[in-house]
Amino acid sequence: MKKKYVIGIDIGGTNTIFGIVDADGNIISNNSIETAKYADINLYIDKIHSLLKEMTKAIGGFDNIEGIGIGAPNGNYYTGNIEFAPNLPWKGVVELAKLIQAKFGLKTVVTNDANAAAIGEMIYGAAKGMRNFIEITLGTGVGSGIVVDGKVVYGHDGFAGELGHICVDRNGRICGCGRKGCLETYTSGPGIAKTARELLQNSERDSLLRRIKAEDITSKDVYEAAIQGDEIAKETFEYTGKILGEAFSDFVAFTTPEAFILFGGPTKAGDLLLNPIVEHLEANLLKIWKGKVKVLRSELKEADAAILGAAALAW
Amino acid sequence: MKKKYVIGIDIGGTNTIFGIVDADGNIISNNSIETAKYADINLYIDKIHSLLKEMTKAIGGFDNIEGIGIGAPNGNYYTGNIEFAPNLPWKGVVELAKLIQAKFGLKTVVTNDANAAAIGEMIYGAAKGMRNFIEITLGTGVGSGIVVDGKVVYGHDGFAGELGHICVDRNGRICGCGRKGCLETYTSGPGIAKTARELLQNSERDSLLRRIKAEDITSKDVYEAAIQGDEIAKETFEYTGKILGEAFSDFVAFTTPEAFILFGGPTKAGDLLLNPIVEHLEANLLKIWKGKVKVLRSELKEADAAILGAAALAW
Repeated sequence: MKKKYVIGIDIGGTNTIFGIVDADGNIISNNSIETAKYADINLYIDKIHSLLKEMTKAIGGFDNIEGIGIGAPNGNYYTGNIEFAPNLPWKGVVELAKLIQAKFGLKTVVTNDANAAAIGEMIYGAAKGMRNFIEITLGTGVGSGIVVDGKVVYGHDGFAGELGHICVDRNGRICGCGRKGCLETYTSGPGIAKTARELLQNSERDSLLRRIKAEDITSKDVYEAAIQGDEIAKETFEYTGKILGEAFSDFVAFTTPEAFILFGGPTKAGDLLLNPIVEHLEANLLKIWKGKVKVLRSELKEADAAILGAAALAW
Repeated sequence: MKKKYVIGIDIGGTNTIFGIVDADGNIISNNSIETAKYADINLYIDKIHSLLKEMTKAIGGFDNIEGIGIGAPNGNYYTGNIEFAPNLPWKGVVELAKLIQAKFGLKTVVTNDANAAAIGEMIYGAAKGMRNFIEITLGTGVGSGIVVDGKVVYGHDGFAGELGHICVDRNGRICGCGRKGCLETYTSGPGIAKTARELLQNSERDSLLRRIKAEDITSKDVYEAAIQGDEIAKETFEYTGKILGEAFSDFVAFTTPEAFILFGGPTKAGDLLLNPIVEHLEANLLKIWKGKVKVLRSELKEADAAILGAAALAW
């Protein structure tokens, strides 16, 4: 018989958050630790284990847990490993699923954070009932979870779906990955801030953003200026939406999703971002797809999404 | 019990070829008619039916046929329809599977020609045993069949996998689809010929291709000049390979195939085309994928591939 609860763990460069989730997607309890404090992976796992042991007391212990789902940067679904994650304290290949499974005695599944978000969206969010969609996560980077026929695409090696590193301009902005013009250099939080800085620099126009030191501008500042009607800020979102809409038109020619679902901080801009995405998506689509593909905001609460997505993986 | 044979039908703008295929991929008999001669879809189906009726006599009639697979431009797997195919005599939406099934009394499945080629490749060709690969067909246009986890990707509407219409340059060559810079404007047969014409026009260098009237140059001419060492012809393939290799590097970030398998006339150029593809693919891949993705030529005989691919669909 299936058990009543699963554990969801979301590993980020700064914090690791985890929780106990029931079959309806309610987070029964949650907690977090600072990832970077644990250079030794075994001490890290021990800490999470002892905290979760306490937390599971209320629901009858680990015996009532079906399994553990983990979302982690560079998490590989096939191997259960984290492989060469630049922002985590553990270098090289970490056999995470194997270590957690050994410690907890529970079936453990790993994938990257964007894939976990896509699964969460499919089970609890805006993609309920959809068999084909693409989750796009906008944050420090740009991630993606591609769902085809109800299943996340992992590809032949477990790392498929890195749409943040699709090239939108071969001579474009330098990316952290060492290449040029990746989608995330324009449409991540820092990418959006960079666009605002460029627009400020290339014009004399007044802007609320000029009150902030150029290098300190964040995508949140741009959003706050935009809702006050700031022209430079609004243009920043129009430009970001254009880049995303054009890229999405190519993504449609690939797996033809029913919808793009946008997740993460910059999506708070709402129609300021979504309208130009839709406009440029429609303008660039092949005729057979015009008017057929939706662009939606995630319906997962940002604070819960990571745990829910990881937890959904465990069912 | 499964029956011993299937029928494969490949519908092209010029000819429709069809054959009876056994479970080992042997074409027992085949035939063809001129597609364009049949403006009336019912007369077209009647003609194919009467020819196949004759052909099936040797194997005990239609009773020994498991089903019919059809590869057709703009063929939709979900609906069984051909929808708005610009190069076929029947306009609008043709309920092909329904009509064929009614006439033959046999289960009938339709997909586009590139998807059919991908299925043929998976069962009989270079993709045997692969669960994730992308078939790229280079011909009058550029088509694609994307296989994820052993299944062709059809998307939410049945038309997924139109990689010939991925944009490689938003200000690039005009495409027949009405947009600019589609992959196929550079890497189809006519796209390759156009590159050669541009190179000839932009230089004074001698070339075997100058013996041909510019507008008559075909990709076959370019190939024949290249194997004789002609510089302009070799550069044409290098440029074509660069465009394909760069595009493939983005495709890897999408579904991460184990291999790209190239099918169609221009692949006869062999290493003249494949070497620059591999070079530019590797130069543009995200680090985690370098050295991991193969670029192969189809192992399907061109004359048989269309029938085999369509037939494979029927099993």
